[in-house]
Amino acid sequence: MSLLQRLSFNQMTADPWSLEQTVRNCSSSGVPYIAVWRHKLEGDAAKASAMIRREGLRVSSLCRGGWFSAPTPEERRNRVADNRLAIEEAATLGASVLVIVSGPANGQTLNDARATVLDGLLEILPDAEKAGVVLGIEPLHPMYAAERSVVVTLKQANDIADQLKSPAAQVVIDAFHVWWDPDVMQQIERARGKIAGFHVSDWPVPLPGILMGRAMMGDGVIELRNLRQAVDAAGYDGPIEVEIFNEEIWKTADDGLLPLIQRRFAEHV
Amino acid sequence: MSLLQRLSFNQMTADPWSLEQTVRNCSSSGVPYIAVWRHKLEGDAAKASAMIRREGLRVSSLCRGGWFSAPTPEERRNRVADNRLAIEEAATLGASVLVIVSGPANGQTLNDARATVLDGLLEILPDAEKAGVVLGIEPLHPMYAAERSVVVTLKQANDIADQLKSPAAQVVIDAFHVWWDPDVMQQIERARGKIAGFHVSDWPVPLPGILMGRAMMGDGVIELRNLRQAVDAAGYDGPIEVEIFNEEIWKTADDGLLPLIQRRFAEHV
Repeated sequence: MSLLQRLSFNQMTADPWSLEQTVRNCSSSGVPYIAVWRHKLEGDAAKASAMIRREGLRVSSLCRGGWFSAPTPEERRNRVADNRLAIEEAATLGASVLVIVSGPANGQTLNDARATVLDGLLEILPDAEKAGVVLGIEPLHPMYAAERSVVVTLKQANDIADQLKSPAAQVVIDAFHVWWDPDVMQQIERARGKIAGFHVSDWPVPLPGILMGRAMMGDGVIELRNLRQAVDAAGYDGPIEVEIFNEEIWKTADDGLLPLIQRRFAEHV
Repeated sequence: MSLLQRLSFNQMTADPWSLEQTVRNCSSSGVPYIAVWRHKLEGDAAKASAMIRREGLRVSSLCRGGWFSAPTPEERRNRVADNRLAIEEAATLGASVLVIVSGPANGQTLNDARATVLDGLLEILPDAEKAGVVLGIEPLHPMYAAERSVVVTLKQANDIADQLKSPAAQVVIDAFHVWWDPDVMQQIERARGKIAGFHVSDWPVPLPGILMGRAMMGDGVIELRNLRQAVDAAGYDGPIEVEIFNEEIWKTADDGLLPLIQRRFAEHV
């Protein structure tokens, strides 16, 4: 199978496009997978699912569940309920993976927030198992520890997956988030059999911003091919998502974007 | 001993101040230590040293050595030579520690750059031993991996120190760089007997920028007291450097800065 047949377009790479436009563009460019964000579903996962299938695409993952930590027990319960809804939406979309971004400490201590993440995952795990959806625990880069994710290393995500002891608890590896880690190769190998996804983009130098600083593959310093080969060698042969948060790409996204991504993907991933 | 007697003012916290002004301000505020940057020495460490002693201050560390990786062997040799000069300057200043910031990959692969750092440290270690200066290997936050330091976790710094097997090879722990790490407490304990420094500032939310985004202690989310107590419990009782890179502080630095730092230090560290 050619690597391009594993390409999944994460729709936040072209945020200005509607879901329908994204699906059509993927379809006409021969991109076989799409990664969908919940806020783009407009509350109707069934309608989105029908439209995606009509165009012959498959959904690599739904982004995102998680965000468990909250200052009050009531709010934490609401977060769990929302994760159950996300699992249902993933199942409706035929997405085998719900990406889990754990969320920030949000008023808790780091240790308490990390315990809350584990508790939240334990609560929703039976729902995921029943729905046939894998919870893909994604460590985010440590620069997001205060604002987006108290889970910041692949080791930590592997530890959580080990504690959950279920085929529905796996990890998602995003090159942008893990490339710097001296233990990354060892932790990729350790994740064998529980890798639910692999995401690519690049780290430009200098990094223009914390949230929107990602670059197109080949425009940065991440040794993407090394990482992809390590993930493959650890037994992963599923879709590879291109997820680039970059305002310039948002502004200029046109018919040339997907062909460019395909070229860069083939050259660098 | 009161905690304030361990306070060291890192002079980059008030970059617009000359070394002399910084020393006088520390002296008149009763700040016992200063951390000196090489580019502020104006090539005359002996003169700076005399001036610092005259005002009754001690030097907690000299910033910085390291930055070993380079695209050519010649440049790498130059870096080693510059580190030898830095060791001499530290000795002249009576600084027991030269802070080592390893530098970016700088055209090498990450693995090669990390090997270059180890090689560089091995080369300069005998000089450090002879001069009575400790090389304080400081892991930087992973968001600096591409531009400033291929050493990004305390585990990695501890691993390097273990490999060097010398009392002159230790680690420096900066709260801003390590607070997010799930293994930080374990690695602090592991660093027992080889902690050459502890630095504090804070991580504001949102982080305003990558390089100049640090905040005054108490204005962010870092659990500074927890970390300081862990470092103390691991046997460290030396100076604690306040190192804040923040343009607002640079702009407004006046006679009130050191008293403010002392208050925040006593309250939060």
